[in-house]
Amino acid sequence: MGSKRLDRRELLKQGAALAGGLTLGAVAPASAQTPASGGPAAASGPTMIRANKELIAYGDRSRFVTSVRIPHGGRPSPDAFGLTFHVATPLQDSVGVITPSSLHYTATTRGSFLPDIDPREHRLMIHGLVDRPLTFTMEDLKRLPSVTRLHFIECAGNQSTPKAKTVQESHGLTSCAEWTGVLLSTLLKECGVKGSATWFVAEGAEEVKGASSMPVAKAMDDVIVAYGMNGEAVRPQNGFPLRLMVPGFEGIFSTKYVRRIKLVDRYYMNYNDYGHLRNDEKETILGYQVGPKSVITYPSAGQQLPGKGFYEISGLAWSGGGAIRRVEVSTDDGKHWMDAQFKGTPQRMAHTRFGCPWNWDGKETVLLSRCTDELGAVQPTRAQVAKFFNVPVGDVPGLDNTIQPWRIASDGSVLNGLA
Amino acid sequence: MGSKRLDRRELLKQGAALAGGLTLGAVAPASAQTPASGGPAAASGPTMIRANKELIAYGDRSRFVTSVRIPHGGRPSPDAFGLTFHVATPLQDSVGVITPSSLHYTATTRGSFLPDIDPREHRLMIHGLVDRPLTFTMEDLKRLPSVTRLHFIECAGNQSTPKAKTVQESHGLTSCAEWTGVLLSTLLKECGVKGSATWFVAEGAEEVKGASSMPVAKAMDDVIVAYGMNGEAVRPQNGFPLRLMVPGFEGIFSTKYVRRIKLVDRYYMNYNDYGHLRNDEKETILGYQVGPKSVITYPSAGQQLPGKGFYEISGLAWSGGGAIRRVEVSTDDGKHWMDAQFKGTPQRMAHTRFGCPWNWDGKETVLLSRCTDELGAVQPTRAQVAKFFNVPVGDVPGLDNTIQPWRIASDGSVLNGLA
Repeated sequence: MGSKRLDRRELLKQGAALAGGLTLGAVAPASAQTPASGGPAAASGPTMIRANKELIAYGDRSRFVTSVRIPHGGRPSPDAFGLTFHVATPLQDSVGVITPSSLHYTATTRGSFLPDIDPREHRLMIHGLVDRPLTFTMEDLKRLPSVTRLHFIECAGNQSTPKAKTVQESHGLTSCAEWTGVLLSTLLKECGVKGSATWFVAEGAEEVKGASSMPVAKAMDDVIVAYGMNGEAVRPQNGFPLRLMVPGFEGIFSTKYVRRIKLVDRYYMNYNDYGHLRNDEKETILGYQVGPKSVITYPSAGQQLPGKGFYEISGLAWSGGGAIRRVEVSTDDGKHWMDAQFKGTPQRMAHTRFGCPWNWDGKETVLLSRCTDELGAVQPTRAQVAKFFNVPVGDVPGLDNTIQPWRIASDGSVLNGLA
Repeated sequence: MGSKRLDRRELLKQGAALAGGLTLGAVAPASAQTPASGGPAAASGPTMIRANKELIAYGDRSRFVTSVRIPHGGRPSPDAFGLTFHVATPLQDSVGVITPSSLHYTATTRGSFLPDIDPREHRLMIHGLVDRPLTFTMEDLKRLPSVTRLHFIECAGNQSTPKAKTVQESHGLTSCAEWTGVLLSTLLKECGVKGSATWFVAEGAEEVKGASSMPVAKAMDDVIVAYGMNGEAVRPQNGFPLRLMVPGFEGIFSTKYVRRIKLVDRYYMNYNDYGHLRNDEKETILGYQVGPKSVITYPSAGQQLPGKGFYEISGLAWSGGGAIRRVEVSTDDGKHWMDAQFKGTPQRMAHTRFGCPWNWDGKETVLLSRCTDELGAVQPTRAQVAKFFNVPVGDVPGLDNTIQPWRIASDGSVLNGLA
């Protein structure tokens, strides 16, 4: 499969040459349409919203924007059990790299309720194999040197299947936010980690406490004890008032409502160890790390293209291995690949938005994307993963980072290419 | 005034040396406190929130987080007139660089109501001195090559005064968001700008249409026709479904609810030209650009320090002239300055979060910050600006980018140093 870079400006020029100045199918000369918003109502101006006290204090979105999170994969419905276990982000409507906090995916391993914590009462204790066990209030933490970093979280259950009708169903258990907090290493240096400490466990205030053993090397590297998310306090569904943010590891390690961190000298098994326990510790740790993954969010399954002509294909790429180095897109089911463009500088362990120009000829085809991270790891096909695990292609195990095909039908409808 | 870099690690070490392992005044050994969150209630676990359908669809913040926007500078109250003219962001509670959309500052020049626009009916017309006048639907725009960029907006009225009781009152008419949309230059290339076009005017769907003449050179540089904000649709208070984002220019140029852009061959005066009309066109354009500015958000006026010991001073810096290159902080009213650290890579025309370690000895003092942008422009003192305009120091005109002093009293209270 060759790789050919298609220059955007060149394509726009081609478009202009083909269509007499119009690269889209539907852009109208100004004389043919009403210039003002509101269509027929424009002459008298659009209808108005009267702002009330609440809207001034803390604004809301337009009533015309109805994008919402949905329960994932047939888990219990909210009517029956309160909070469902997994709630997926509407990636088909995403723009940029930030997931709005109101739409960030959320997952619990058990239970229908969220802790309702008064931050003035919350404490974080660090103990175990340290010289000085310490307890921090929220006020203490906010006085310490902070970091602000963009990071994704992805659930180990984020697996595409032929049944997925939208990218929300196939990939919605990942989101990306700007996290602010104190590096765990800053706190551990205050406590003084003993040489015998090799692992740590974290406990949250949930019914199931979210703890899972992690290597001390990760704690000393880039783990954040986060109190801020997208410029305000972490939301209750995301661990208010304090959570771990463990960049690049499966979401379950980013313990919500974190209240206790213990330094230990071995790997401890616990409730959340879904198949994490392996014979070799190094293999265990590598198994935590999310592989390079990308998906096209527009056009994606369930959407409808209005007709042939120019489109910018848009999508997200991320990896637990660091920053995304390259994204390639194919618009002919993998026969040819071209480099996509990044929208901004790729950040480490963060969603990266990519775009790729496409002039659709109106014929049926399949769109694909694949990414490469800074370690050189390349997103695999489903066939490659199936071969590696020696299973049928339909039985690729989670966490699934395989290439997602979207089928474009000649009527412009977009379908899951796995189906 | 000399500049001395104070190493953070060194300061933490000093703190440790002074306090026997504790850099804060109040961190308790773990044995002295309850380890779990919820204080006395911890034994039985925290109280819980039961998630309902609405909370799953589109999440909300904690009931313990009460930070809100407030009407700015004694403008009409929301009870009397609906939307007040200017609503300020609670910068004292800000973390990171993103302002949550619900807390983004908003300003109108007249009127109490917001356009309530159906995006399916909205159109953007580009006409005047172009080869091909065109009208775009929202669907058209979303098919075109997009950009995603972090940019601040700041109102020309964002002026500190001795009366300001908080940083929200003194500096709250600026915010920063991740904007997504199409470069205006992309649309103008489709329309074909005639050589005679030197300025453009933009019209929104507000009662006062927000238009103000801008140079074509700016349009061809970095102006965004934005439909996305912080990962979702632009909010109604910020111009839903479409607004201009004019990086680095006074906020009034970023026309909300934009529906018409006209290319013209001269500067046109209009309703919004508050003193923008000057004899010289180049001077006019330079007058649009926001100067380098910074402010400390923690500690800031109205806040209370719990006692002496270690603090990270935190603040924001921005400039219409590009990226912030340097921020300096003084903790002794300008006698000494030290370089602050950036939290992430400064982006062009975006808020940049800075931090600076400070070991407060409990004595009264004054905190200052000043920034330098990539052009080498340095944030001035009030005395310098007053001298430039030949006015008393109390009469510094807006847009005010002077250094803001915060006075720390010996009891830990923080006061406006201008008062």
